[in-house]
Amino acid sequence: MNTFGDNIKLCVFGQSHAACIGVTIDGLPSGTQVDEEYVAKIMALRAPGNSAIATRRKEPDKVEFLSGVVDGKTVGTSVCAIIRNSDSHSSDYSGIFKKPRPSHADFPAYVRYGENFDLRGGGQFSGRLTAPICIAGAIALSNLEKIGVSVSCHVNSVGEVEDVPFSPTEDEKDLAEKLGGMAFPVIDEKAGEKMIETITKASEQLDSVGGVIECKITGLPTGLGEPMFCGIENVISRMMFGIPAVKGIEFGAGFAGSKLRGSQYNDSYYYDENGKVRTKTNNAGGICAGMATGMPVIFRVAIKPTPSIAKAQETVDLATCKNTVIEIKGRHDPCIASRASVVVRAAAAFAIYDLLQN
Amino acid sequence: MNTFGDNIKLCVFGQSHAACIGVTIDGLPSGTQVDEEYVAKIMALRAPGNSAIATRRKEPDKVEFLSGVVDGKTVGTSVCAIIRNSDSHSSDYSGIFKKPRPSHADFPAYVRYGENFDLRGGGQFSGRLTAPICIAGAIALSNLEKIGVSVSCHVNSVGEVEDVPFSPTEDEKDLAEKLGGMAFPVIDEKAGEKMIETITKASEQLDSVGGVIECKITGLPTGLGEPMFCGIENVISRMMFGIPAVKGIEFGAGFAGSKLRGSQYNDSYYYDENGKVRTKTNNAGGICAGMATGMPVIFRVAIKPTPSIAKAQETVDLATCKNTVIEIKGRHDPCIASRASVVVRAAAAFAIYDLLQN
Amino acid sequence: MNTFGDNIKLCVFGQSHAACIGVTIDGLPSGTQVDEEYVAKIMALRAPGNSAIATRRKEPDKVEFLSGVVDGKTVGTSVCAIIRNSDSHSSDYSGIFKKPRPSHADFPAYVRYGENFDLRGGGQFSGRLTAPICIAGAIALSNLEKIGVSVSCHVNSVGEVEDVPFSPTEDEKDLAEKLGGMAFPVIDEKAGEKMIETITKASEQLDSVGGVIECKITGLPTGLGEPMFCGIENVISRMMFGIPAVKGIEFGAGFAGSKLRGSQYNDSYYYDENGKVRTKTNNAGGICAGMATGMPVIFRVAIKPTPSIAKAQETVDLATCKNTVIEIKGRHDPCIASRASVVVRAAAAFAIYDLLQN
Amino acid sequence: MNTFGDNIKLCVFGQSHAACIGVTIDGLPSGTQVDEEYVAKIMALRAPGNSAIATRRKEPDKVEFLSGVVDGKTVGTSVCAIIRNSDSHSSDYSGIFKKPRPSHADFPAYVRYGENFDLRGGGQFSGRLTAPICIAGAIALSNLEKIGVSVSCHVNSVGEVEDVPFSPTEDEKDLAEKLGGMAFPVIDEKAGEKMIETITKASEQLDSVGGVIECKITGLPTGLGEPMFCGIENVISRMMFGIPAVKGIEFGAGFAGSKLRGSQYNDSYYYDENGKVRTKTNNAGGICAGMATGMPVIFRVAIKPTPSIAKAQETVDLATCKNTVIEIKGRHDPCIASRASVVVRAAAAFAIYDLLQN
Repeated sequence: MNTFGDNIKLCVFGQSHAACIGVTIDGLPSGTQVDEEYVAKIMALRAPGNSAIATRRKEPDKVEFLSGVVDGKTVGTSVCAIIRNSDSHSSDYSGIFKKPRPSHADFPAYVRYGENFDLRGGGQFSGRLTAPICIAGAIALSNLEKIGVSVSCHVNSVGEVEDVPFSPTEDEKDLAEKLGGMAFPVIDEKAGEKMIETITKASEQLDSVGGVIECKITGLPTGLGEPMFCGIENVISRMMFGIPAVKGIEFGAGFAGSKLRGSQYNDSYYYDENGKVRTKTNNAGGICAGMATGMPVIFRVAIKPTPSIAKAQETVDLATCKNTVIEIKGRHDPCIASRASVVVRAAAAFAIYDLLQN
Repeated sequence: MNTFGDNIKLCVFGQSHAACIGVTIDGLPSGTQVDEEYVAKIMALRAPGNSAIATRRKEPDKVEFLSGVVDGKTVGTSVCAIIRNSDSHSSDYSGIFKKPRPSHADFPAYVRYGENFDLRGGGQFSGRLTAPICIAGAIALSNLEKIGVSVSCHVNSVGEVEDVPFSPTEDEKDLAEKLGGMAFPVIDEKAGEKMIETITKASEQLDSVGGVIECKITGLPTGLGEPMFCGIENVISRMMFGIPAVKGIEFGAGFAGSKLRGSQYNDSYYYDENGKVRTKTNNAGGICAGMATGMPVIFRVAIKPTPSIAKAQETVDLATCKNTVIEIKGRHDPCIASRASVVVRAAAAFAIYDLLQN
Repeated sequence: MNTFGDNIKLCVFGQSHAACIGVTIDGLPSGTQVDEEYVAKIMALRAPGNSAIATRRKEPDKVEFLSGVVDGKTVGTSVCAIIRNSDSHSSDYSGIFKKPRPSHADFPAYVRYGENFDLRGGGQFSGRLTAPICIAGAIALSNLEKIGVSVSCHVNSVGEVEDVPFSPTEDEKDLAEKLGGMAFPVIDEKAGEKMIETITKASEQLDSVGGVIECKITGLPTGLGEPMFCGIENVISRMMFGIPAVKGIEFGAGFAGSKLRGSQYNDSYYYDENGKVRTKTNNAGGICAGMATGMPVIFRVAIKPTPSIAKAQETVDLATCKNTVIEIKGRHDPCIASRASVVVRAAAAFAIYDLLQN
Repeated sequence: MNTFGDNIKLCVFGQSHAACIGVTIDGLPSGTQVDEEYVAKIMALRAPGNSAIATRRKEPDKVEFLSGVVDGKTVGTSVCAIIRNSDSHSSDYSGIFKKPRPSHADFPAYVRYGENFDLRGGGQFSGRLTAPICIAGAIALSNLEKIGVSVSCHVNSVGEVEDVPFSPTEDEKDLAEKLGGMAFPVIDEKAGEKMIETITKASEQLDSVGGVIECKITGLPTGLGEPMFCGIENVISRMMFGIPAVKGIEFGAGFAGSKLRGSQYNDSYYYDENGKVRTKTNNAGGICAGMATGMPVIFRVAIKPTPSIAKAQETVDLATCKNTVIEIKGRHDPCIASRASVVVRAAAAFAIYDLLQN
């Protein structure tokens, strides 16, 4: 289902070649601020074509609020917001239907839906459908900011190039603000330059490359998170795998932590100078038993290389039942990590905002 | 919430020092087989004390079905099954309340619930609460077997020691069967021996160690998985983070895949000798756009080191507001990976079984 | 919440003075027919201004499908459909905010939402929001027809004037078809004329009048309905009270049946000439223990008199905290029963269609 | 499904001849009072055999809390409570399987479940399964009392005999308290005596009789109730139809109100001597647009005559495919209205308590 949330439910709709894509948001408390400028800012960061290495499509991703908002505030009924589709080149996708693109939705969707699905431009499986998540996430982000909750992301790695990680124990408010305005958010600008080189090189070789995004959330009330299946990790992970390219998620020390001993991993408690209980390390990523410990929540998601590459690839011809080769035309991002970082940030914000309504 | 599932809903209840722990399962189709021997077999594998390296507690984990099952079949109403608690040493936990154990639920639970929670033995946050998940999972496992779906797990690593991974492309039916009967499931027995050495050594040093569990699911119908937020990855990850020690999950090539180029990562399609569409590699872990590709579903979860260690640890005293030291008594597994592998298998089976009801 | 459905979820959005009203429908199986002409036909029957006694507003209620439908079929993603708002007279509602209209949402909404709600034209509480339900219901109706399930409604009474009831035991296919095309659906046309007289008289006296709608569903598979809280009665009643004017619902003999003895009420079984098990009477309204018995499902809903009347009414002035008098301007239906019968039919169809997906 | 609730989820389990019946309650805030004496008091009122006219079975309905409660308070995890089954006479039900009892679940359950259901004693469709609802409802009732919310019920009618109705506008606190302790709650004791005569006479004639229960809820915050499908009427009606004998529900003036004119029906607002906004009449039953108006919430449910009667009844023999006659042995209440009034009260309390968590 395209529906997410326990207290506030978002429902994503649309296909990349329908009249529009959009989202309904049911359950936003009446009087919740909807700052259309803030939403536009987030959409601009996610939009294609905003950096040298992104796809050349120029979709403005202009958001229209059709209902539920009056004078910048919700009125207690469902919010519906849409983005009209304009710049589509349907012909680019001719022939794909019978020659499934490797590592795309094409083949399982064909088996599942027969011919009853909309393949054009990735149809309902397009990365473009993360834009509606960003609308809901942007509303969440601006309202979280008001209550002192900050959500920020950076591109942690592209291929083998790594950025400096977030500090697991410090708040880094200034860094969060800086990253929030960057189209290609990195902590170490040098690393960022190398990443772009890596992406450019892959692109020139008709190829793509993957990456990792790191997300940090500060300001959560200690104890946030419901038991067992509705803890912070459960809801964030469920949300993250709704973003097409995500193939892994780890909190705190994550997989590296599994190699440690308990005495290395465990986060010792201490009283800081202000009498606040803190931990010396934060291998737990700010979460124990699904609940916020009061330390920053930190997680990383693995982003697979963009599956659409210009290089010839082996596949099957479902019409002739023979092995064949496909060359994918069209304009595709050689690396989705920077744009996905906006989506990860917005999606995490929505999941947390929903959890905070309990 | 302690409730999981869209079509079949399980609700876990109990604390480690309540009269019992258990589960209700609502929505199992009438006539579903409930093989109590099969359930007992799974519980025995998860039970403490079944290997040299596990905790010495001897809880039989005997499952009683209170309702919903007549003559080994469901009757269309909710199933309730319980495990009575017997072997509990409450006194082992005295004093913990005010000195939160590092990397345990204690501190956030204290802030969240005040004194209104049951800390004894980990209370509602105990790993013991994975036993009820195993009851539901065992029912799922035996019914999945009937329709040709196999779910198996092995301990992929303990500390730095690694087992041979599953083949991402072959079915390995015999291996699955063998692993299903092992208390410490590994593919390479030599690796298993080294893992046990590693665990024993940690234990002798009053310490613990983490690990990774790999899970493989074969026989799923191609196309299984609902759109966006109810794909295979969404539901499995949400379930996995319900297991207390899990801190990360990755599907297929996962985080390592994020370092690759598209031309390396993409799984080429081909017709095999039987005219079946398969992929040459399986970096996608058998899932594209949340849907089964027809190749084995493969994922790994990171298990943190057991937080309860006998070594002295720094913490705070919430009564005196001073920094202090804690030494945790009681019997604890120095590595939870082997027992958790049973839980991961059962939990994955339940999530898949629920998804298959759509 | 504005969300309804277990397998297929509809989410209603919009206010009477927003850009549009509409609905998203998540979970319609791929390939489900969406017959836009059929939808338009249902919308036309519900539309204001289609009979002498209805409000004089002339809103075309033209439905636009924004997503999820290609070539008259669903593609497996969420369907979004809207109706643009055009003919609104905002000024008619000036001053209402502080003088709550008796038996309207105004007062509780004011207390609940403060000034953060959209009162214009009834805002999110307008009967106009039943139009989106009709879109979803019309899709359900046309697909139910294909599998032999018929849903029909008539105006059972207006004030004291009663129509002939449905036969509780016969299928009456021809009658169902006839009623499906009537703007003021009645079985006995003479009764219909008297109803219109009653309504006209009320209208001339600046007043309104209530009524009862009877609904009949045939062709359901025996045994349909989930246990306890998801039986046919649970889901239909929950849906019906989503229609603003509904204040009661009864199945089969309903309240009159509560006066009977068991020997009078119980529906005896017999084999008919075709070897089918039927009941001689149908006091159960085709439902036992929440499940379809195979006999027609019959229920009635009580529709309160339209609260907006032109007569002066006593109310309070929330600005001055004094008792006062209100005269409601604007165009309002003196009796909502005929238009509501379309909504009841569509809403029942959606609830049943959702239940049939189990 | 046997699951109800948005914020607090109850899941009913058990059959009348299983080891026990019971309920899990997930989501009760930590620290919620669970007064076992109060629960026992409610169970005693519902228990069979507590008045001359009830079934002679003597089931103590002793509630055992298996988990989630420590020292009379919830600890934030799921509560599981059971009632063991003891006094069952399975042989009384022999032969029923093939001769469905009129107006019972037997026939649709047989078609739905084949032989995979538990018919003994009504199995999962027994009125006995309302006992677990009462456990959850009793917890809700005692906690609602603490915040000034009162829920009370009386037997409004049995057959043609009518009790005095609740005052729709006054609080009647003393009456509520009195009714809460009565096994056969009526306002006018003379009417109560006539009801018992009516029931006794029906019983002597091997027959049964139906009735109506009226419920009144005071103290709700004005504005309570979520939009459209989660208003007070939606959630209460969905819950009520989970009680096996309920066949209708009406709020306020209900069906009688549908005969009125708007000028008669509308509830005028006025400021009372304390400056509180009240309505002169309460035809809305305390609910407008799904939200509490601040006046008492009043609804009535129609209870059908007990279907199990000793008189011979016509039915079919599913084994021989012939028409036949059935005589139902066993002990059954000739009128369920008084015992059902306890269930209606508890069930309404749970639904309201759940709604209040928003």
